[in-house]
Amino acid sequence: MIPPGTTAEKFDKALKRFREAVGSEWVLTSAEDLETYRDSYSPLWDDPQERRAAAAVAPATVEEVQKIVRIANELRVALYPISTGKNLGYGGSAPNLSGSVVVDLKRMNRILEVDATRCSALVEPGVSYFDLYHHIQEHKLPLWIDCPEPGWGSVMGNALDRGVGYTSQNYRDHFGAHCGMEVVLPNGELMRTGMGALPGATTWQDYRYGFGPYVDGLFSQGNFGIVTKMGIHMMPAPETMVAGYVEVTRYEDIVPLIAVLNRLEASGLCDGMPQLASPALGGLMAPPDPEITRVLGTPGGARPADLERIAKGKPYWNLRVRAYGPVDIAKGKWEYAKSEFRKAIPDCRFFGETMHQVPLTRDQEDALAVTELDHERKVNFGIPNLEIFAVGARSPAFPQPADGHLWFSPVIPRSGEGVMRAQNVFCKAISDMGVYIGFNAPMPLAYAPHLFFMIFPVYLFKSDKAANKKGLELLRHLVDVGAANGWGEYRAHPVLQDYIMDSYSFNDHSLRRFCEALKDAVDPNGILAAGRYGIWPKQLRNARSA
Amino acid sequence: MIPPGTTAEKFDKALKRFREAVGSEWVLTSAEDLETYRDSYSPLWDDPQERRAAAAVAPATVEEVQKIVRIANELRVALYPISTGKNLGYGGSAPNLSGSVVVDLKRMNRILEVDATRCSALVEPGVSYFDLYHHIQEHKLPLWIDCPEPGWGSVMGNALDRGVGYTSQNYRDHFGAHCGMEVVLPNGELMRTGMGALPGATTWQDYRYGFGPYVDGLFSQGNFGIVTKMGIHMMPAPETMVAGYVEVTRYEDIVPLIAVLNRLEASGLCDGMPQLASPALGGLMAPPDPEITRVLGTPGGARPADLERIAKGKPYWNLRVRAYGPVDIAKGKWEYAKSEFRKAIPDCRFFGETMHQVPLTRDQEDALAVTELDHERKVNFGIPNLEIFAVGARSPAFPQPADGHLWFSPVIPRSGEGVMRAQNVFCKAISDMGVYIGFNAPMPLAYAPHLFFMIFPVYLFKSDKAANKKGLELLRHLVDVGAANGWGEYRAHPVLQDYIMDSYSFNDHSLRRFCEALKDAVDPNGILAAGRYGIWPKQLRNARSA
Repeated sequence: MIPPGTTAEKFDKALKRFREAVGSEWVLTSAEDLETYRDSYSPLWDDPQERRAAAAVAPATVEEVQKIVRIANELRVALYPISTGKNLGYGGSAPNLSGSVVVDLKRMNRILEVDATRCSALVEPGVSYFDLYHHIQEHKLPLWIDCPEPGWGSVMGNALDRGVGYTSQNYRDHFGAHCGMEVVLPNGELMRTGMGALPGATTWQDYRYGFGPYVDGLFSQGNFGIVTKMGIHMMPAPETMVAGYVEVTRYEDIVPLIAVLNRLEASGLCDGMPQLASPALGGLMAPPDPEITRVLGTPGGARPADLERIAKGKPYWNLRVRAYGPVDIAKGKWEYAKSEFRKAIPDCRFFGETMHQVPLTRDQEDALAVTELDHERKVNFGIPNLEIFAVGARSPAFPQPADGHLWFSPVIPRSGEGVMRAQNVFCKAISDMGVYIGFNAPMPLAYAPHLFFMIFPVYLFKSDKAANKKGLELLRHLVDVGAANGWGEYRAHPVLQDYIMDSYSFNDHSLRRFCEALKDAVDPNGILAAGRYGIWPKQLRNARSA
Repeated sequence: MIPPGTTAEKFDKALKRFREAVGSEWVLTSAEDLETYRDSYSPLWDDPQERRAAAAVAPATVEEVQKIVRIANELRVALYPISTGKNLGYGGSAPNLSGSVVVDLKRMNRILEVDATRCSALVEPGVSYFDLYHHIQEHKLPLWIDCPEPGWGSVMGNALDRGVGYTSQNYRDHFGAHCGMEVVLPNGELMRTGMGALPGATTWQDYRYGFGPYVDGLFSQGNFGIVTKMGIHMMPAPETMVAGYVEVTRYEDIVPLIAVLNRLEASGLCDGMPQLASPALGGLMAPPDPEITRVLGTPGGARPADLERIAKGKPYWNLRVRAYGPVDIAKGKWEYAKSEFRKAIPDCRFFGETMHQVPLTRDQEDALAVTELDHERKVNFGIPNLEIFAVGARSPAFPQPADGHLWFSPVIPRSGEGVMRAQNVFCKAISDMGVYIGFNAPMPLAYAPHLFFMIFPVYLFKSDKAANKKGLELLRHLVDVGAANGWGEYRAHPVLQDYIMDSYSFNDHSLRRFCEALKDAVDPNGILAAGRYGIWPKQLRNARSA
């Protein structure tokens, strides 16, 4: 395989020059090496259309990244930068464009600075959440990280993918918490953004915007450069976390429940990750019940009698509310939340109240729940882990063990009416297609204030191409019905990126056309991450797969 | 005067077509009308170099904005969009490039939506803080705005200028609080960003990033489009604000004072605007004392004996700490802050503790301080006002009443060491030049978590061109000494933008060159706000004034 747009001769020359640039042991071309850059959750596994890398190159320094980019420009070699680790349901290490050379940044794994007074860090792409966590533990710094699940990922990579975490609301939006970037541009030049554009800047991690246009957003879910350093704001380790559940009986109680939650969170009074679950509808660990999905998906909305029947006496909603801080304040927030919920929903019930002092002891850490999504988990304490791999499709409760999954993650309105409408629409779509998604009904997740994602998996089976094909069909159908209702996805696997970007079509795709005009201006040879999030360079725009 | 790059004939034609597009009463060309578009705080007032508009055009709809932009493209007429109101110290309604046609968006002043459950609003450019505040009062919505001083400005314009406010920490960074934009691009096309790129989006004001590259930053301090709609997240009206002062004696006590503040604020435990003052060094209302400036500016740092002498027994620092929330929680935050300050600085003192229930009564509102910067003011309660015009250069305390001022606003490290170093460097520069800046020593302002701006005025006098010239010289000198120490400005008046952008020069101005490559791609005729924040189109790059 050679990169599209180049020749075998040029590609050989490029590999030779890559070897000169980074050392021959860091240019990977053997079938065995390239196996590790395959997307292990690809729905096109072993299919001719599976996206595969032609080679991989692993630089150790910014200068080596610059050399690689310059060589690639000269010889028209498509590059696809990755950092380290992955939320595989959004794609692995394989490029959008088959034949690209993966630029694997995992060797650039230095933690350049952690400032405990100014509460920030400066990291390279290969620094994982585990790395940063261990650095903090080792130096006994009074800081927390906010990590996603699984915790093997890159702090920078997750922020650039616009990933999210589980601790306090000001840190859960990882791109929103970043502060300052260094970027190798597609022409090989080095740029620093924000205050970093000022030579010798002493406030690079204090203030993100700098002076003039703020360009950092282009490098998130984008292909405008290779980010080689990124700052991130960090949360001071709190003294305690206090949490509890509020439970409501009726399906439509979600309306006041969310209205109160929104005000609490937008006021900073519910600063931990709020988490909604439904005993009546079942969770990831409950046996699948297609009747529930069918009832919720009733055209025009579920009927009250049916809702009562499928609930089997169980309450419809519970919400775990979490607050960090000194114990009196964290407790005060929870007590206040209770009073507000009680005012809005007089027959609501509270239970499962906990108070954890921080730092946890090792025993307390080990006692945190692994397999139940509705208890405290390590991520709620900023402790990275890989335990998420024990749940879902790999757990004993799952009817048919899967080899992987693709996430479907639409943004839905943050209101009870919005949740009911989204469950109705998506349950109908899922029911019609007869694909089991791991839940009987998709649930909203409050990863950031003001925001509800719905995130649910569509499972993949390496030995069952027909199931994978049906899964992809379901996903495209879900994108369509979501878009028809005004809901779009926040993030997606490469196989779906073009299809989803197509739905962001306001004024004949003006946003995509604007981005592609910018792309052509800064990457005229179209060498960098072509097709990432639906943005193609002019040379390859006909490769758009949607 | 005609726009640069066009002819008198073409300009006449453009005016004719502008009149057809918006109605002739909204195309302003008379000397009397254009007087209102002069920059009343221009340091070049009545000088041939004063930046002046050739005409102004005031569209009422998005379609009219599109027509204007298309006509301007065809006839190569430079445009300069403004919204409404201004922090005049950062420039008035006059363009960066003399001869531009001001596109005055004040007629587009509709509040399109305010959602009290999802805590957001969608506004047009002409909506001022007063407008949004009155809308909320009239509809009795349980929301606050976060407004700057003065409050006459545009909610959107202030966010795009990256202005800041005074209430809770999640809302004070106005660009950071925005969510979703609609933009007329330089080619006249309409684009929506974030979830708005999805036709019929129902979450445009819930989630800012949307799918793919996040482009909104280009439109802040930028010239990549005319923003015609913008969403903004809003704070639920709190129940109370509790506040108090912590006072410390010694100059170097600033080090633990800021260290504690940083952790409180990054933890969300000090959510109101923290405000630092120095009784020893005097404030805006105190008589000027050049000796203080000289001592602080001693090369190598102020000597302890001198610091003690100039203090005349007064304490060096006080910090007003503010917390919003239900009364118990807000009080709890203040009590916790006290305990943390006491731990770090055992001889610190607390005073001036207040508790305000919200909403304030009319009498309470009227009793809020006007002329003292170290008491509660209306802005701390999200109440827009113009009272700031009564302080400073126009107040009886000021030695020589000025006609205006330019702000100098460097970002300095958020640490006590950083404050002492910045005071040393800037006091020396000010002392050397012998220009009075309204304070004896510049003070840091904590407008957003992690961030210290220093903001101080250089005064302007319409009748004293020599003083203005000297003021401009001081400002350029301050930019230079700031840059030499790794500090850059966050925002500036047009007369200084090129000079400041020049200091953001990492790797031969790679950030500016990147922005200008983008600019040429989306505005090939260079018609939109040429020179804004130092970004020039290729046709006019030689007009760069630095």
